Amino acid sequence: MWKQKQITLPHFPRGFHLITNSIIDEVPEIRDISVGLLHVFIQHTSASLTINEDADPTVRTDFEAYFNAAVPENAPYYRHTLEGSDDMPAHLKSSILGSSVSVPITNGRLNLGSWQGIYLCEHRNRGGHRKLLVTIQGV
Amino acid sequence: MWKQKQITLPHFPRGFHLITNSIIDEVPEIRDISVGLLHVFIQHTSASLTINEDADPTVRTDFEAYFNAAVPENAPYYRHTLEGSDDMPAHLKSSILGSSVSVPITNGRLNLGSWQGIYLCEHRNRGGHRKLLVTIQGV
Amino acid sequence: MWKQKQITLPHFPRGFHLITNSIIDEVPEIRDISVGLLHVFIQHTSASLTINEDADPTVRTDFEAYFNAAVPENAPYYRHTLEGSDDMPAHLKSSILGSSVSVPITNGRLNLGSWQGIYLCEHRNRGGHRKLLVTIQGV
Repeated sequence: MWKQKQITLPHFPRGFHLITNSIIDEVPEIRDISVGLLHVFIQHTSASLTINEDADPTVRTDFEAYFNAAVPENAPYYRHTLEGSDDMPAHLKSSILGSSVSVPITNGRLNLGSWQGIYLCEHRNRGGHRKLLVTIQGV
Repeated sequence: MWKQKQITLPHFPRGFHLITNSIIDEVPEIRDISVGLLHVFIQHTSASLTINEDADPTVRTDFEAYFNAAVPENAPYYRHTLEGSDDMPAHLKSSILGSSVSVPITNGRLNLGSWQGIYLCEHRNRGGHRKLLVTIQGV
Repeated sequence: MWKQKQITLPHFPRGFHLITNSIIDEVPEIRDISVGLLHVFIQHTSASLTINEDADPTVRTDFEAYFNAAVPENAPYYRHTLEGSDDMPAHLKSSILGSSVSVPITNGRLNLGSWQGIYLCEHRNRGGHRKLLVTIQGV
């Protein structure tokens, strides 16, 4: 069984945001899969996806603070600077975190750990509406 | 063909550990697949998975040293601090390295390069028993 | 439908290089898949794969500059040093960026965003010919 759907997310501000339920709601066919995989892909190069702690919102604000420190704006060696000081760091953060996540499906449910959620990582100041491609497969 | 299995790893100390054989031993059905994929997923947000050099153990101790330097404990901007100084860095390292790896299966074997192995990346001082979900599929 | 192929890339210099078309050309069977996934895996631990901006080449030179700053050569704590000053940083960069990428296939085409391309990330000064395993599956 294969199912694929494009999702357009609402605008999110710069930072890290939980989107697990937004994804699950769009592919109710997960319920029909005993063993399978969910694949989520973001069609952008200045936003990314990751899986991390879904309970305490300070984890997500600490993510924003850490990645801003680790991937500086206005580094003297940047040459790709025409689209603003947040652009090149956004490309770098996207590749460090990655453009896709995949999660096992077991008995009709995403088999995430107790504290795991899927994050949209919005690295631009004004990223706009981000598009995801969600693909599920299994038996 | 689909097969999925949950594996509970023994306790590993903080650091980077080779687990390739622990995974292969749990899914002997790999032998029955001509073309396929192995997917390994960790159900935690303070430990992660990656693929790297499996021969020289100093690569793994250098990983521990590098990530401790790159993702500091007690950064002044951390707000998620109640679970100990190793907790927030563990979440960050987990997302930088990732919660899953996937490896091609060819003619009944994982088709890793000559020097590649799968690492469990234990980022907590006392991470306890970590659970993996191993999914294989193919024909 | 499953198809797997090993690709040997030409020698690339240290840096980040677009290889999207090199991959597509090797698996024309993508055209026969309505819904599916492309998986690309690199069989090395000192080179990696990522997806990022495919238009402006300064993005790729900024990647090289950033990762050289973020993952230094000759860090005083490295112990894995026998293979040259570029070797241990190459292992670290490979795990930060990752050994595989996966991309949805839709109606016979890779469903990348408008500005997305697949990068070979060559972290060694003389990496030689790198081998990829490309696996496509779908219906």
